[in-house]
Amino acid sequence: MRTLDIIHKKKNGGELSAEEIKFIVDGFTKGEIPDYQMSAFAMAVCFVGMTETEVSCLTDAMMRSGDTLDLSAFGDRTVDKHSTGGVGDKTSLVVAPVAACLGGIVAKMSGRGLGHTGGTVDKLESIKGFDTTVSPERFTEQAEKVGVVIAGQSANLAPADKKLYALRDVTSTIDSIPLIASSIMSKKLAAGSHSIVLDVKVGSGAFMKDIESAEKLARTMVSIGNSCGRKTRALLTNMDVPLGHAVGNSLEVIEAAGVLKGEVKGDLYEICVALASNMVSMVNGTGIADAERDVRRVIDSGEAFEKMKEWVAAQGGDSRYLDDPSLFPKAKVAHEVVSPSDGYIAGMDTEKIGDSSSILGAGRLKAGDPIDYSAGIVIAAKTGERVSRGDVIATLFTSDAELAKRAEEVYLDALTFSDTEPAPEKLIYKVIQ
Amino acid sequence: MRTLDIIHKKKNGGELSAEEIKFIVDGFTKGEIPDYQMSAFAMAVCFVGMTETEVSCLTDAMMRSGDTLDLSAFGDRTVDKHSTGGVGDKTSLVVAPVAACLGGIVAKMSGRGLGHTGGTVDKLESIKGFDTTVSPERFTEQAEKVGVVIAGQSANLAPADKKLYALRDVTSTIDSIPLIASSIMSKKLAAGSHSIVLDVKVGSGAFMKDIESAEKLARTMVSIGNSCGRKTRALLTNMDVPLGHAVGNSLEVIEAAGVLKGEVKGDLYEICVALASNMVSMVNGTGIADAERDVRRVIDSGEAFEKMKEWVAAQGGDSRYLDDPSLFPKAKVAHEVVSPSDGYIAGMDTEKIGDSSSILGAGRLKAGDPIDYSAGIVIAAKTGERVSRGDVIATLFTSDAELAKRAEEVYLDALTFSDTEPAPEKLIYKVIQ
Repeated sequence: MRTLDIIHKKKNGGELSAEEIKFIVDGFTKGEIPDYQMSAFAMAVCFVGMTETEVSCLTDAMMRSGDTLDLSAFGDRTVDKHSTGGVGDKTSLVVAPVAACLGGIVAKMSGRGLGHTGGTVDKLESIKGFDTTVSPERFTEQAEKVGVVIAGQSANLAPADKKLYALRDVTSTIDSIPLIASSIMSKKLAAGSHSIVLDVKVGSGAFMKDIESAEKLARTMVSIGNSCGRKTRALLTNMDVPLGHAVGNSLEVIEAAGVLKGEVKGDLYEICVALASNMVSMVNGTGIADAERDVRRVIDSGEAFEKMKEWVAAQGGDSRYLDDPSLFPKAKVAHEVVSPSDGYIAGMDTEKIGDSSSILGAGRLKAGDPIDYSAGIVIAAKTGERVSRGDVIATLFTSDAELAKRAEEVYLDALTFSDTEPAPEKLIYKVIQ
Repeated sequence: MRTLDIIHKKKNGGELSAEEIKFIVDGFTKGEIPDYQMSAFAMAVCFVGMTETEVSCLTDAMMRSGDTLDLSAFGDRTVDKHSTGGVGDKTSLVVAPVAACLGGIVAKMSGRGLGHTGGTVDKLESIKGFDTTVSPERFTEQAEKVGVVIAGQSANLAPADKKLYALRDVTSTIDSIPLIASSIMSKKLAAGSHSIVLDVKVGSGAFMKDIESAEKLARTMVSIGNSCGRKTRALLTNMDVPLGHAVGNSLEVIEAAGVLKGEVKGDLYEICVALASNMVSMVNGTGIADAERDVRRVIDSGEAFEKMKEWVAAQGGDSRYLDDPSLFPKAKVAHEVVSPSDGYIAGMDTEKIGDSSSILGAGRLKAGDPIDYSAGIVIAAKTGERVSRGDVIATLFTSDAELAKRAEEVYLDALTFSDTEPAPEKLIYKVIQ
C-alpha cells in the first residue's frame, strides 16, 4: 500500500477501504507518512468528501490511535454530551447533575476555551478549589458514587486527531464535514460513554453558520456513533444569540446554578431541559415526554442543584459558591454598555460577542494564555428586545478600563438595530437520531 | 500576508493577486513556507484551477526563482522547441539543425529520460564524445558560430519549479493544467529564447490522453508565453503510436540522422517538418507555407544534415557516427518479436511500448539510474499495418536475453489486433498560436 495511491484514489473520487484509511491514519500518527502527504489528502477530502463507511473507518482509526476509557463497568448508564461550541454555552454544568439524578452517569472529559468559545474546564476552575485533574481511579470512583465527574482532557485520547487537527488548522482544511465529524467523534468514542447527545450549534456564534451544513454534520456524527455501537442523538440548536445572559467563566457558573435553583428560565433553561431529556431518555430507554417531565421535576425540586453541589464538593470545589454567588471574586471594572439608539435589537453577531468577552480577559487567543475567571459579559437585552437610547444593554466585567473600552466597541459592532420587531427565531431546530 | 489565507482564498475559488502568488512561490523556495502548506495549496489548485492571469503570475514567479539565460544578444533569432514527452520522439535532433540553416538559433537546455519517455541529452550522449556539459561562454559562442547548442540542464533554472514538482510527484498533484503549464513554461522562459514552439503530445503514449485536455494545456502555455513577451505556438500532435520506428537512444539518433539524409519519411519526417516550419516562420516572420518550402529544401539538399554534423562535432561528438551508423556499439541481444495473429494492428498502447524499451535498458525507472545506449526497439509494423502470424513486428535490442523476454511480454501486451483496417489517425491535430 502506498500513500500516494491512497491520495490519488480519494482525489479521483474513489471510496477508500478500511485498510487504506487505517494505513494512512496509523502511518501519519507514527510519523511515517509526512505532513505534506497528509495535508494534500485532507484537502482532497475537503473537495471530494467521504462516504458514511469511510467516515466511520476514519473515526475508528483515530479513536484507536491512543487510549480509550473503559466505562463498561457502568453498563449502559453512561451518557456524554458534546457541544460543537458556542458563546455562553454552560449547559454541561446543568445537564450533568440533572442526568445523574435520573440514573445517568456523566463521566466526561472536557476542554478549555479557545477563540470566541469558552470551555467547561475553565468555567469549573473558577470555583474555588475545583480540581479538574482527576486520576483514573478517582474518576471511576466518583462516577460510581456521585454520578458526575468532569475532568480535563489528561488522557492520551485520539492523538491522531490531535495531530491531524493541528495540520488542518494551518492548511485551510478545517471546513470539511467528514473531517469535523470524525475529529469530534473519535474523541467522544474514546471517552467511552454508551450514549452520546450532540448539541450542534447553528448560527453567527457557531462554526456552522447555516442549518443545512449543521444538519449534514449532525447526521454524519449520529451515523458514526450508531455504526460504532453507541446510542447517538444530535440536537440542532440556535447560536444566533448567546445562550442565556452570562458570558465568561464565573458568570456562567452562577447562571448555570441559577437554572438549577429555579431562578433562570428562557433559552438556556429550555435547551438544558431538551439536552437532559434526551440524555435521560437514552439512558433509561423511556420516551422523551416522560424524560422531560422527570427532568423538570428534579430541577423544580432542587434535587439537581443538590447533586451539582455534591459533584463540585467531590472534586474539591467550595460548593458554598453555588449557594452564594457573591463569594466569587468580583471584577475590578464593571462597565455599562448603553444602547446607541431606539428600537429593537435585530441581531447579534455572536462570534463578535465571544471575541468581546475574550478581550475582557475571559477567553484565550491561543492555547496556554492565562484567563481572568471574573471577566465577561452580562447581557441585559438580547435579539428581539425593544430598547431605548441610553438603556443599559450589557455590563462588561474586566480588570482594566482600557480593555472595557476596546471590548465595548466590539460588542456594539456586533449588534444591529431595527425599527420593526424581528421575527422570533427557533431555539431547537431539530433532533436527529 | 499569510500562507493560510492564500490557501483558503484559492480553496474557496478566489483569484489570487500577483503579490500573493509571488509570496507563496518565494516563501516556498526559501523554505519559509513548509511543504505541508504548499501541498495543500497544490491540491486546492488541482480542484479549483487558476485564471490565465494567475497562471502567468505563477510562471513568472517560478521563472524568477533562479537563473535566467540572457540570449538577448541574438535579438529575435533564438527559438526553442519543447515536447511534453512521448515515445520515439527524437524531433529535437532534427529540427534544431534545420532551423539553424534558416536563420534560427537553437540554444537550448534539455533533460534526461525518465519513466517511459526518453530525453534528448541521453540520446546525444550515445554519440561517442558528445559533451552536454557546456560552460556559459561556450554555450553562447557555439550558438553564434553554429546556430545550435544543446546542453544538459546545468544552470539553476526555475528551482521553485523543481522543488514544487518533487512535492507534486508525491502528493498526487501532478495532473493540473495550470501547474503543468507553469512548470514547463517557467523553465522555457528562464532558458531565454525569443520564440517557443511547443509540441503537445496527445494519446496513449502521452501525459495528455485526450485532445480536449491537451488543447487546454496548449492554450494555457501559449497564453503564458505571449503574456510574457515571447512568441509562442503549440502543435497538438499524435502520440497514440510511437513516433517513427526507433525507440532507444542510439537507435533514435540513427533515425534522426536518417531524416536529414532523406532516408526516413512518414510520421517522424512530417512532424519534424511541421515543427521546424513553425520555428522558422516565427524567427523570420514569414508565412508557414514559405517556411515549409524552405525546410523541405534544406533537408533535401543535405544542408541540414551537414549542420547536424557541424553541431555534433562542435560539442565534441564524433560526427562520423552520423554518416555511418554501424559505428555505434551494437546491443548483445537482438530479439525478434513475431506477430501472434493475422490481421491489422489496431492499436499500440504507446506508454507500454516506452516501458518495454525501459526494461531493455534504454530508460530509467528513477533519476540517476544508468542506461544502455544501444538498447531499445526497432518497430517493424505500426498501427494500421496488416500482419500475418509469425511476421517479425519488432526487434528488441538489449544486453540480456532475460530482459528481452520480459520486454517482449510488455510489448505484445501493448498491441491490439483486428480483422478490419482501423481508420487512419491524424498526425497533427491543431496549431495554436
